[in-house]
Amino acid sequence: MIRVLGIDPGSRFTGYGVVEWQGSQPIYVASGCIRVTGDDLAAKLRCIYHGVSQIVDMYRPTETAIEQVFMARNADSALKLGQARGAAILAMANKELPVAEYAAKKVKQSVVGKGNAEKWQVQHMVQSLLQLSAKPQADAADALAIALCHLHTQQSLVRIGSVSGVRRGRMR
Amino acid sequence: MIRVLGIDPGSRFTGYGVVEWQGSQPIYVASGCIRVTGDDLAAKLRCIYHGVSQIVDMYRPTETAIEQVFMARNADSALKLGQARGAAILAMANKELPVAEYAAKKVKQSVVGKGNAEKWQVQHMVQSLLQLSAKPQADAADALAIALCHLHTQQSLVRIGSVSGVRRGRMR
Repeated sequence: MIRVLGIDPGSRFTGYGVVEWQGSQPIYVASGCIRVTGDDLAAKLRCIYHGVSQIVDMYRPTETAIEQVFMARNADSALKLGQARGAAILAMANKELPVAEYAAKKVKQSVVGKGNAEKWQVQHMVQSLLQLSAKPQADAADALAIALCHLHTQQSLVRIGSVSGVRRGRMR
Repeated sequence: MIRVLGIDPGSRFTGYGVVEWQGSQPIYVASGCIRVTGDDLAAKLRCIYHGVSQIVDMYRPTETAIEQVFMARNADSALKLGQARGAAILAMANKELPVAEYAAKKVKQSVVGKGNAEKWQVQHMVQSLLQLSAKPQADAADALAIALCHLHTQQSLVRIGSVSGVRRGRMR
């Protein structure tokens, strides 16, 4: 069984989404958003770290995936995103889970069919692919899209029989 | 007893320095540099996290300090620095240690006496203040300077009798 935890990290909200493969169908397991609270940076990073650790303990994914960041808006937001991203990746890696990275373009391509899709199109396709009764919240939708992208990638790799060596993302 | 661990985080090398206050004198305890290794980002962040955790276990600091980053060179290096910084802060915070943040200018002011001091001046003053027989390595010198800055700040706060509420740095 492949069950994937996708994470959309942020310094204020960190989205998560869990999907799994049943038969030939991706199935929704859970999704939501960690609201990052704390009086200082250390407390905020612990909030992300412990939040993601709890999600791993609760939903027991076999793999995890996170979006690659090629170009942040500016250096200050990149620093904040990097700190949040580092905390989320550490939480998953410290649970001995493989962490895959995918470029945003690849996630959109995989879910919507085009690399330059709009946010609402991602939300719409996530809802449709997972047969959800309502549109998922934006952060959760992005996390579900990353998880779906990983599921699709793994499934095509299984089909062509070469799953090893591609689980982990590009080195940064 | 106040024993301070200073950290100079980086995605390739993370410097550390431990100093303590004995009588009216800052005393050198240890310093060095974690070489960040690993095949992918998750492994690299774990290397920093476990390296800093081990240093905490080994030297048992009572407080920790790290440099604030106001403006990184560019968004890509800010993201990498943020990830490394997040891992180091989490390692210290997960050991229940307070993490203070100081601006680079404040660190230089505290150690050299001027906020725009050069790197070699910081190295020289760290060597002199801690009565080291040789100039410390650059990453270790920066980490020792951050630790010294925190020690000085805490000492002046003790002298004016208002140590509470200023241990933790500015929120980011």
